[in-house]
Amino acid sequence: MKEQEFIKIIKSTLNSPYIGDDCAYLEDLGIVISQDSLVEDVHFKKEFITPYQLGYKTVMVNISDICASGAEPKYITISLSLPKDTDNEFIEQFYKGAKYASKNVEIVGGDITGSDKIYISAAAIGSTKNREISSRKNAKAGYKVIVSGEHGNSATGLNLLLQKNSLFKKGEIDNKFIKSHLMPEAQIEFSRRIAENIKEDYAMMDTSDGLADALFQIANASNVIINVDTAKIPHSAGVDMHTVLYGGEDYQLVAAVPENLLQKISGYTIIGDVEQGSPSVKLDGKILKEPENSLFNHFKE
Amino acid sequence: MKEQEFIKIIKSTLNSPYIGDDCAYLEDLGIVISQDSLVEDVHFKKEFITPYQLGYKTVMVNISDICASGAEPKYITISLSLPKDTDNEFIEQFYKGAKYASKNVEIVGGDITGSDKIYISAAAIGSTKNREISSRKNAKAGYKVIVSGEHGNSATGLNLLLQKNSLFKKGEIDNKFIKSHLMPEAQIEFSRRIAENIKEDYAMMDTSDGLADALFQIANASNVIINVDTAKIPHSAGVDMHTVLYGGEDYQLVAAVPENLLQKISGYTIIGDVEQGSPSVKLDGKILKEPENSLFNHFKE
Repeated sequence: MKEQEFIKIIKSTLNSPYIGDDCAYLEDLGIVISQDSLVEDVHFKKEFITPYQLGYKTVMVNISDICASGAEPKYITISLSLPKDTDNEFIEQFYKGAKYASKNVEIVGGDITGSDKIYISAAAIGSTKNREISSRKNAKAGYKVIVSGEHGNSATGLNLLLQKNSLFKKGEIDNKFIKSHLMPEAQIEFSRRIAENIKEDYAMMDTSDGLADALFQIANASNVIINVDTAKIPHSAGVDMHTVLYGGEDYQLVAAVPENLLQKISGYTIIGDVEQGSPSVKLDGKILKEPENSLFNHFKE
Repeated sequence: MKEQEFIKIIKSTLNSPYIGDDCAYLEDLGIVISQDSLVEDVHFKKEFITPYQLGYKTVMVNISDICASGAEPKYITISLSLPKDTDNEFIEQFYKGAKYASKNVEIVGGDITGSDKIYISAAAIGSTKNREISSRKNAKAGYKVIVSGEHGNSATGLNLLLQKNSLFKKGEIDNKFIKSHLMPEAQIEFSRRIAENIKEDYAMMDTSDGLADALFQIANASNVIINVDTAKIPHSAGVDMHTVLYGGEDYQLVAAVPENLLQKISGYTIIGDVEQGSPSVKLDGKILKEPENSLFNHFKE
């Protein structure tokens, strides 16, 4: 998959100002919209995740995109393409998990079609009322870079599952890392605190494709240097820095915000700052090489 | 696929008032949203349709859902899951077709992931400003049943393609029936005329799953009898009544509207009327048996 190349082609074909952020900001309607898909054997394996957890994760992954924009998650539609042998139990459990995850977000529709493998695509809508909306273009020199929580847990959980450690039964989430992977939490409160309190432009992304990827996306779109002090990145004991930076699927948020915001909010960790200069990410003062293909794709290649 | 059974489970699990129509009407935001998927070898075959036509059809199918609600189509997001061997040309042609179809509708985002086959899911947003929004629950005794145009053309085109008639090259649309199948037109103007002029509740659906299916859905949801005079249903010469009723994918609109609306609008054909009574569809006075599985699925089963 040549995702970045494809996106360049799409941008030039459509010539649309909307393509670029995780959400599209539809100012005239006062909403943001995002769409995200989960494909069997690409994003999940049936042997690891229960239908309930899959429904839960589908909703959280999509709410996370809305949170990245700073909007308030309001509605979600879910489109399921399912193999012929799918039973009623799968549907019931999937939607129970989806409903549990959605809390104040209403699941309002979607469709069901046939397919060979399970293919899930959801669209989420957020309200921009009383919220300042982020863009990855908005990081400015002098801003602080903050994160909502620990990175590397989800990938650590996935690795435990891939080792097929016989200690873990399908869907078991007693292990903190496996729970992070199978049932991630969208950072609704972190997003709300920023978007309701900030007055200036700011950049925010979720770290679904990895913390490093998000930092590169913001640095490149904003045309700035992002300095990160790796010792400050929250992570669990035993998780190595490569996993922290590239693991992906933690669904935490990373934001570049003006320093004056930080006295108004709580529950963040400063991991670095933004500096003028040719777009790059510096870890502990050293330039980080950008991976050629930043597409996050567990099971293939 | 047990689509109707699954939808019942979803409705009872979610207990949401939004599930039921093709679009969800989000009154607080002044929008409708719908999501529809196209799956390779279920909804289309690569041997028949070009990437350009596939992009075009993806957009039209989704705009058609918005038109069925009476809202004004405004924005669309497209999520593509693509096999590894997908080339740049596919992406460029797909989006050129999508852009050509979208006209005043803006394509604002989506995502790209890997998969074994091509899965396309799009979400469309419509504005409800100055529009009366339909629901299939809203057909009332005394209403007239109208359609926007010919039925059976798309299925006739598909049959020509399935016969692999050597006269037709992939993507060739000189034939009117094949054009209807590969590049259907959403009924934007028909929808607008009704939704801007009507004052009362009304029912409207697109006929993507077949005219008969739409009539059953409206009759059942509204708890009424729908009488249809088959001689009045517009169709091309040579297309038999079974194909007209069950062919599907014409993306015309069928609506049950108060008679007083009809003097204010043009471009419709009256095919019947609505009567009080236990929910059913009557063709030329005879009750039509409801198919057990109304899922429209070309290539499977």
